Amino acid sequence: METWDAITARRNVRVFQDRPIDPADLDRILEAGRRTPSSRNSQPWDFVVTTDRARLTELAKVWQGAGHVAGSAATIGVVTAASDDARHREFVAFDHGQAVMAMMIAAAGMGIGSAHGWVVDQDQARQVLGIPDDRVLSWVVSFGYPADRALQPVKQPKRKPFEEVVHREQW
Amino acid sequence: METWDAITARRNVRVFQDRPIDPADLDRILEAGRRTPSSRNSQPWDFVVTTDRARLTELAKVWQGAGHVAGSAATIGVVTAASDDARHREFVAFDHGQAVMAMMIAAAGMGIGSAHGWVVDQDQARQVLGIPDDRVLSWVVSFGYPADRALQPVKQPKRKPFEEVVHREQW
Repeated sequence: METWDAITARRNVRVFQDRPIDPADLDRILEAGRRTPSSRNSQPWDFVVTTDRARLTELAKVWQGAGHVAGSAATIGVVTAASDDARHREFVAFDHGQAVMAMMIAAAGMGIGSAHGWVVDQDQARQVLGIPDDRVLSWVVSFGYPADRALQPVKQPKRKPFEEVVHREQW
Repeated sequence: METWDAITARRNVRVFQDRPIDPADLDRILEAGRRTPSSRNSQPWDFVVTTDRARLTELAKVWQGAGHVAGSAATIGVVTAASDDARHREFVAFDHGQAVMAMMIAAAGMGIGSAHGWVVDQDQARQVLGIPDDRVLSWVVSFGYPADRALQPVKQPKRKPFEEVVHREQW
């Protein structure tokens, strides 16, 4: 798919077809994450990819809003070092935002939908994914073919108007 | 350009040709930012786009690593509400990472290079862009046609090996 079409076709998809993602396509999504730029190229991430239905069902319990993980074809967990430094966490969050967006656009380019969710229950995350004690699961990103309709460019996204958020030359 | 090619062709470009970006292409980059998903669709951003050379030269002074802004064809500043809440800032940083990545991939899809930089001198940012006192300039993202060579898929990105950062089913 053309880049612009993929960017405009990306939308939150939370209900998926019961259809697996080809392993090569899944690796491509992961590769998009791996290539993401980061502060001083620190690459503050590991990606744990899950396709096992029983494991996805358990992984969906890490946050009340992560139910979409259970029915996904695959979910990628973004793992990072635990840190008490709020400023550091803010930089890492920016880099994670970049990585998650790159993976979601890569997926959209192959007609694969996605949704991402926060993680609250770190004990559950550790138990399900076997994450070491000095790491945390920051985000879960679920992927799959949309159950409702194929991805197509969205004409009227639910966002503030363009001229409201864009300022030219000065505020 | 195909989505996958744009994702793999994106690289940090800090030296640009003296060639403007077509206004329609620039609006497309901004539209990619506007469409970005965010926590509860809060859309915690305004985008200030600058193409004036004198203003870009001054804007480049917001951080010692933002020199690439001065020679860019256009730079987009990401502005958000000032906040003392570290947890809130962390969420906003994630959303900004998503928005910046979407804009950089949209640009790459049109052969336009990009680099992003942090902002330290908020007084300078306020003076140059006229940002209100209750807002901060979070990031500057410079865009332009690469001076060195056209964007093409990068074969060996400087990143940790795929099998080192990707874990299958469990850590």
